Amino acid sequence: MSVYKSYIEGNKDRFLEELFGLIRIPSVSAKPENNLDMIKAAEYIKSGLLAAGADKAELKPTKGFPVVYAEKIIDASKPTVLVYGHYDVQPAEPLDLWKSPPFEPEVREGKIFARGADDDKGQMFMHVKAFEIMNQTGTLPCNVKFMIEGEEEIGSPSLKEFCKENKELLKADIILISDTTMIASDIPSITVGLRGLSYFQVEVTGPNRDLHSGLYGGAVANPANVLSKMIASLTDQNNKITIPAFYDDVIEVSDEERKEMAKAPFNLDAYKKALDIEDIMGEKGYSTIERTGIRPTLDVCGMWSGYTGEGAKTVLPSKAFAKISMRLVPNQKSKKIDKLFEDHFRSIAPAGVKVTVTSLHGGEGYVSPIDTAGFLAASKAIEETFGKKPIPTRSGGSIPIVADFEEVLGIKSILMGFGLDSDAIHSPNENYPLEHFYKGIETIPHFFRIFAEKS
Amino acid sequence: MSVYKSYIEGNKDRFLEELFGLIRIPSVSAKPENNLDMIKAAEYIKSGLLAAGADKAELKPTKGFPVVYAEKIIDASKPTVLVYGHYDVQPAEPLDLWKSPPFEPEVREGKIFARGADDDKGQMFMHVKAFEIMNQTGTLPCNVKFMIEGEEEIGSPSLKEFCKENKELLKADIILISDTTMIASDIPSITVGLRGLSYFQVEVTGPNRDLHSGLYGGAVANPANVLSKMIASLTDQNNKITIPAFYDDVIEVSDEERKEMAKAPFNLDAYKKALDIEDIMGEKGYSTIERTGIRPTLDVCGMWSGYTGEGAKTVLPSKAFAKISMRLVPNQKSKKIDKLFEDHFRSIAPAGVKVTVTSLHGGEGYVSPIDTAGFLAASKAIEETFGKKPIPTRSGGSIPIVADFEEVLGIKSILMGFGLDSDAIHSPNENYPLEHFYKGIETIPHFFRIFAEKS
Repeated sequence: MSVYKSYIEGNKDRFLEELFGLIRIPSVSAKPENNLDMIKAAEYIKSGLLAAGADKAELKPTKGFPVVYAEKIIDASKPTVLVYGHYDVQPAEPLDLWKSPPFEPEVREGKIFARGADDDKGQMFMHVKAFEIMNQTGTLPCNVKFMIEGEEEIGSPSLKEFCKENKELLKADIILISDTTMIASDIPSITVGLRGLSYFQVEVTGPNRDLHSGLYGGAVANPANVLSKMIASLTDQNNKITIPAFYDDVIEVSDEERKEMAKAPFNLDAYKKALDIEDIMGEKGYSTIERTGIRPTLDVCGMWSGYTGEGAKTVLPSKAFAKISMRLVPNQKSKKIDKLFEDHFRSIAPAGVKVTVTSLHGGEGYVSPIDTAGFLAASKAIEETFGKKPIPTRSGGSIPIVADFEEVLGIKSILMGFGLDSDAIHSPNENYPLEHFYKGIETIPHFFRIFAEKS
Repeated sequence: MSVYKSYIEGNKDRFLEELFGLIRIPSVSAKPENNLDMIKAAEYIKSGLLAAGADKAELKPTKGFPVVYAEKIIDASKPTVLVYGHYDVQPAEPLDLWKSPPFEPEVREGKIFARGADDDKGQMFMHVKAFEIMNQTGTLPCNVKFMIEGEEEIGSPSLKEFCKENKELLKADIILISDTTMIASDIPSITVGLRGLSYFQVEVTGPNRDLHSGLYGGAVANPANVLSKMIASLTDQNNKITIPAFYDDVIEVSDEERKEMAKAPFNLDAYKKALDIEDIMGEKGYSTIERTGIRPTLDVCGMWSGYTGEGAKTVLPSKAFAKISMRLVPNQKSKKIDKLFEDHFRSIAPAGVKVTVTSLHGGEGYVSPIDTAGFLAASKAIEETFGKKPIPTRSGGSIPIVADFEEVLGIKSILMGFGLDSDAIHSPNENYPLEHFYKGIETIPHFFRIFAEKS
């Protein structure tokens, strides 16, 4: 048994209880009523990092929620690893679909159930505990810095600026992030590609008040009908996005690379069964893995209009709203897509309505090279603990700040994630297998050791 | 000054305060939490009718909310007028758009502001007070029966059955209803046509839980995108409804009748200005008056899906919902349209989703003849109080029970309504001009007098 493993064995329950303490703080960055909880969560991590052995730890102010910064510099000549993570979580709604309350963590069938169990409290906290192990066992092989932000789930609006203002402080050889998934416990993988994001809220206004649908229906543009038509027209019958010039910067992946991708394990029947769907649906000409990995997409994340209560209210609503997210592939620029979307959405509105388009979130995609010391360290560390060499994969998700790190700080990121697709992040009943929590804690010191050797 | 007018003058404030007492009871039939308020409102009217001079008044049970029945039989050989109205109101949501609380009536600028101020508490209560006047002034010229129901706003699900079971009790020569509008105070009108209604709630289910839009978006049918496409496809680029056979039973109105309709006063600029819209929108080939009067329509009354809170939650929703109302014209049968809609809606769902279609409300249209004693009495009574002969018009609204009255009881209905389009019924800030409340009370005894003479 490795020194890491035996330390974990001896402190298993305490590690979990400490994570639960963090999870119990409802640090939902999108909800103003949780503003105080945000500070509580940041303080909790600061204390945790100091207790784990940091030389210093502090809350650094930003225009939004503070960044928890901590460091331990053992030797300026040794390489430095910058750990990034986030202490904010997604809103927990709809609450009635949770089997146990989202901010009261509970272990069932070997999994932690709670909002943030995986994304990203569970995964981020593994680094705090791995840091403790290296300090306590005298095995810390390089310098460590922590940058744990509180705005990832709302698009990291302050972090790029924070990086610009703290370039010197954040100097490092590699950024290590655990905020992604692997394919399965027995099919470990490392994410080497992320999608970019353009996220909008649109508002369609018809008449200046809700009207009686009998007296006005058929004579006045109904914003709910109009919004449906506008959304419907954004994709064609092949599920291709119809916004002019949308695909201009998409780099078609070579046949060879697509053949490689097709080798990744994927069981369509199991996929459909897990989601309880009769059939899949997506862009014509691409496989499921390609649709989420190498192709841009457009999804309505929310929409609302008119009467949504019980019974039959006969109303022609004054307004209709939608939240629309576009996932972008590397080389598509979110600012350019923002402009294309906004112009197009306005252009397709009929004369009877007014349209407001508000950008809520955006960021670039990322592709990580697989021949660096960082990637090799991650690959070997995972192989050490999971027993198999991980497969490099492209994720459909977005961590826009990763592209910013490279642009502003000039540092590459390694996405060594331990989540699973079944963790239901952003959904009710988010969970994280205990086994991955402990294996992740064990893997991280291996990463540090191998990275220090290879650098 | 007529005897009616002087009685009203002497009791003005009391009449209003009595109406306010009724309005303060939030009798929202669609909301289970208001069930007790429904009974309170019914009792309030029962007491009011007894105080006004009814021989008897009682709450008659139905499968749903009770019907308030009252009568005064003066002479079996005289004609009988059956007054119909309803004591339930629409939900008041969205509450934040009300300038004063919906169930705390307030007079501003000569109008009563409250839910139910017009529809139908204000209009129905005029009949209670007119009945009092005729009793107190010894001018009641015929027998009167009252049938005030509590389920009009949810489609009168029990009333047809109630009529069948009480055919003898409800025997009358004419049914008098004030639950419609006139064009303007200086352009009085009487509604002679109503549209039918088919109202559905639809539910589109994609994956069995909300998913991360990055990890699954583009690969799995998104029920919000799918529902938008389904709704969009229900009407074509000319705003014609695409449901197969939907128009089969629509009787095209003759060119001559359309020419007559075109003479009704309508100011497009004023209409657009009142609603604050740049342009109108509706079925190609028809005028605004035709679109709401003689053509069937399809409106989304509400829709909802996914995340509707603040900020940018990146979620692929599990479900999307809509409430869809179709207004039908005479000769279209709602049961047949229900079936056409349901079959069509299911047929256009893609394989990746499941669809549930639930009928919430339905009823037939109605056309009233204009050469009967009832219509002539209403016309002359309004001319007496408003100073102008009223124009017969067709309304876009629906009171499905009117067609049932004719079918079950064999009695014609007269829609002598005193509302205005600007009363914002079913909307926030519903209101009813004080002038119409008092003029309505004055008009009703004239109707009784003339009807008794002509019958």
